[in-house]
Amino acid sequence: MLEKQPIGDTVQIEGWVRAFRSNRFIALNDGSVIHNLQCVIDFENFDESVIKLITVGSALRIKGKLVESQGKGQSLEIQVEDVFVHGTADPDTYPIQPKKHSFEFLREKAHLRVRTNTFSAVMRVRSALSYAIHSYFQQNGFFYMHTPIVTGSDAEGAGEMFRVSTLDAKNPPLTNEGEVKYEDDFFGKETNLTVSGQLEAETYAMGLGKVYTFGPTFRAENSNTSRHLAEFWMIEPEMAFYELDANMDLAEDFIKYTIQYVLDHCMDDLTFLEKRLLDEEKTKPQNERSEMALIEKLRFVVDNNFKRVTYTEAIEILRNSKPNKKKKFQFPINEWGADLQSEHERFLVEKHFKCPVILFDYPAKIKAFYMRLNEDGKTVRAMDVLFPGIGEIVGGSQREERLEVLQQKIEELGIDEKELWWYLDLRRFGTAVHSGFGLGFERLVLFATGMGNIRDVIPYPRTPQNAEF
Amino acid sequence: MLEKQPIGDTVQIEGWVRAFRSNRFIALNDGSVIHNLQCVIDFENFDESVIKLITVGSALRIKGKLVESQGKGQSLEIQVEDVFVHGTADPDTYPIQPKKHSFEFLREKAHLRVRTNTFSAVMRVRSALSYAIHSYFQQNGFFYMHTPIVTGSDAEGAGEMFRVSTLDAKNPPLTNEGEVKYEDDFFGKETNLTVSGQLEAETYAMGLGKVYTFGPTFRAENSNTSRHLAEFWMIEPEMAFYELDANMDLAEDFIKYTIQYVLDHCMDDLTFLEKRLLDEEKTKPQNERSEMALIEKLRFVVDNNFKRVTYTEAIEILRNSKPNKKKKFQFPINEWGADLQSEHERFLVEKHFKCPVILFDYPAKIKAFYMRLNEDGKTVRAMDVLFPGIGEIVGGSQREERLEVLQQKIEELGIDEKELWWYLDLRRFGTAVHSGFGLGFERLVLFATGMGNIRDVIPYPRTPQNAEF
Repeated sequence: MLEKQPIGDTVQIEGWVRAFRSNRFIALNDGSVIHNLQCVIDFENFDESVIKLITVGSALRIKGKLVESQGKGQSLEIQVEDVFVHGTADPDTYPIQPKKHSFEFLREKAHLRVRTNTFSAVMRVRSALSYAIHSYFQQNGFFYMHTPIVTGSDAEGAGEMFRVSTLDAKNPPLTNEGEVKYEDDFFGKETNLTVSGQLEAETYAMGLGKVYTFGPTFRAENSNTSRHLAEFWMIEPEMAFYELDANMDLAEDFIKYTIQYVLDHCMDDLTFLEKRLLDEEKTKPQNERSEMALIEKLRFVVDNNFKRVTYTEAIEILRNSKPNKKKKFQFPINEWGADLQSEHERFLVEKHFKCPVILFDYPAKIKAFYMRLNEDGKTVRAMDVLFPGIGEIVGGSQREERLEVLQQKIEELGIDEKELWWYLDLRRFGTAVHSGFGLGFERLVLFATGMGNIRDVIPYPRTPQNAEF
Repeated sequence: MLEKQPIGDTVQIEGWVRAFRSNRFIALNDGSVIHNLQCVIDFENFDESVIKLITVGSALRIKGKLVESQGKGQSLEIQVEDVFVHGTADPDTYPIQPKKHSFEFLREKAHLRVRTNTFSAVMRVRSALSYAIHSYFQQNGFFYMHTPIVTGSDAEGAGEMFRVSTLDAKNPPLTNEGEVKYEDDFFGKETNLTVSGQLEAETYAMGLGKVYTFGPTFRAENSNTSRHLAEFWMIEPEMAFYELDANMDLAEDFIKYTIQYVLDHCMDDLTFLEKRLLDEEKTKPQNERSEMALIEKLRFVVDNNFKRVTYTEAIEILRNSKPNKKKKFQFPINEWGADLQSEHERFLVEKHFKCPVILFDYPAKIKAFYMRLNEDGKTVRAMDVLFPGIGEIVGGSQREERLEVLQQKIEELGIDEKELWWYLDLRRFGTAVHSGFGLGFERLVLFATGMGNIRDVIPYPRTPQNAEF
């Protein structure tokens, strides 16, 4: 709050009261840091009517002298000379009192929860992570690209979509055949919210070389879990002339940079969040607690290589694993080709390798159409980065750059080639090896902050039956 | 493309052919810079079948020795030792040939236009501007915040909205009263795409102090102009404890920083874009040409103070202006209270003051409900930043922080207070003076690149009847 002000100076600060003890010690916070500034007010010399207005949540402007603190817990404090009350906060109705509130309660007060220590720390870390992402790519020769949010194509098929329309909702215009007449809609066709900017990012990678997106994406899936949002932010780099190995190198280097960045810039907030997590886990049985404290876990990711394992190797490990043999998996692993579930990913990461893992070369049948087919004819150059406690944090691949192979795949899947005319053009004109991946931003924030529910790391979560604020 | 490689080294580069002269001189470009790299191929020593594949648009990997160029136009060139053709581009069907294409034509090929000099330069400048925006705010103690894209409230009333829904478009469920039963929709209520993140940004400013948004916003208005998009990106800073003067200072300082950033980092692209604009304007009559060349204009903005003028002063200037007296304005200015049209803003900026102008203290009646009422009871603490050639680039205000004044305004406008319960809570609990503004990102890109149509400064423009790609 007060950077490099010399002791003895008269200073002016503005912020909100976090606590007021003994009619004398005001803990003031302006939102910039986790620590409050102690302001000592000599209540005998102030009008009682002013003192009465100083309650938790009220907004103050304080003038006073900056002095070394006599008390413990802070090095500096302010001797209050003047107080102006911007706004009061009635203790009987202001919901954010200095006591423990449940996260469920605070989700109902999402417009006020950022005034708590936990949420202010989370949101400052979120902001720092965002900037780290931009810094990393800009320093490495990538161009930031805004892919469209409203899209006329559902070619990627990554999930259920939200329709965007200005037609009369109750009585939409109909064609002679009785179908909705989307020609009359705003965009002259049926449009939806994007599930991924990848295909458009590919068009730019094939012109600018290396690009990245960082924007909102949407899934209209009825998933009420602690890891899913209907609206979330995604980062999607896409690089011409990158094969899968280079793609894996980039993903690992990139994630490490962002984590190192918050270690370098957010240590006060991370220290607070680490303590919060420890307190939370004290109430849990031993086997559900984290093996590492938050900051140790972040350092571990930065300092260690991610383990790279083929899908085929992973299946062998899983097939021969104790939980599989003892039938502890909900989905037993019997044969090559099985899609990996969260329980399998967590076993590999948390029990077997005990570090972040990159799985690659997946069966073509369980992956998207645009992934490059390997020489074996049955696997594709896909990769997933799996993180402890989080599961999949990155999904990516080398893209199929060969026109005929891609066309055949599209035909097999029954996708209309006309829908993808522009995507196929990339393979018609100056095609080249290229790769990319997507990182779900909120999962990175979850990991970096040690929070448990994805609704608590985005300001206003959008989930089934919830679009408040 | 080749940074700091010593002369004489054997290098490997990958990119696309922009031109191929005399079967000998390949102009290769990897998208990272405007300049091509000349690669000299000794066609007598290469297989003719390979030479034939080297056409405009094809993707190559070239190995060769880096030498000082004998020709003019470049200092370095590559003596080709080995060529690998990643992908060809049939000259008969590849649309991006080395000739002048109209921007209208290139909009139909938006997936390929980034391979031209003009669009690659524009998109590199766009990326640099984006990063400048993040850098400015992060360096100045602001936190980046993601406001929701799908919103359940239409309180701001900034424009027509797009409905977001997963209900059956043809046969939506209806209530007993025959209305659409939005309780059955994904979010359990009617939802739309956001027109502004301001109200949510205010909630975070009142906790974190200084925040900014940078995200997509939407207007379902049927405007087919060169300055409007249905989907565009907006930056919205919001600051606790800022009065209007500080808000104006911030807007000016912020814009200057971003322009200086591109002057510092994008000079090659700006030089190209300046020449493009000069060429374009040669075809126009003298009085429609810019008074300054592009880079001179950018330097002018950085070096000069923005002129600050009250609305009342502006009305006096306009009322007494030649075009008003000669009835040249489409909307004559007769009295105080008139809303300013584009023609008036351009007169003030381009003819009268000849510099960026900040107009402030507008009549309450023509501005939004959340702007702070002045003591005169008829003007509000609004501000608009007006730019030559662009018009309004920033709109902002000091926000009404007084609960009763805000409630009265809401009542007068017939807005349901329940819709804004959380926004009003900010005035109930710890309210304080605060301010903010919004900057339309594409308008800044237009200004910085000298482009004339907003559809040409965003990768995939969304406009009425157009959501291709």
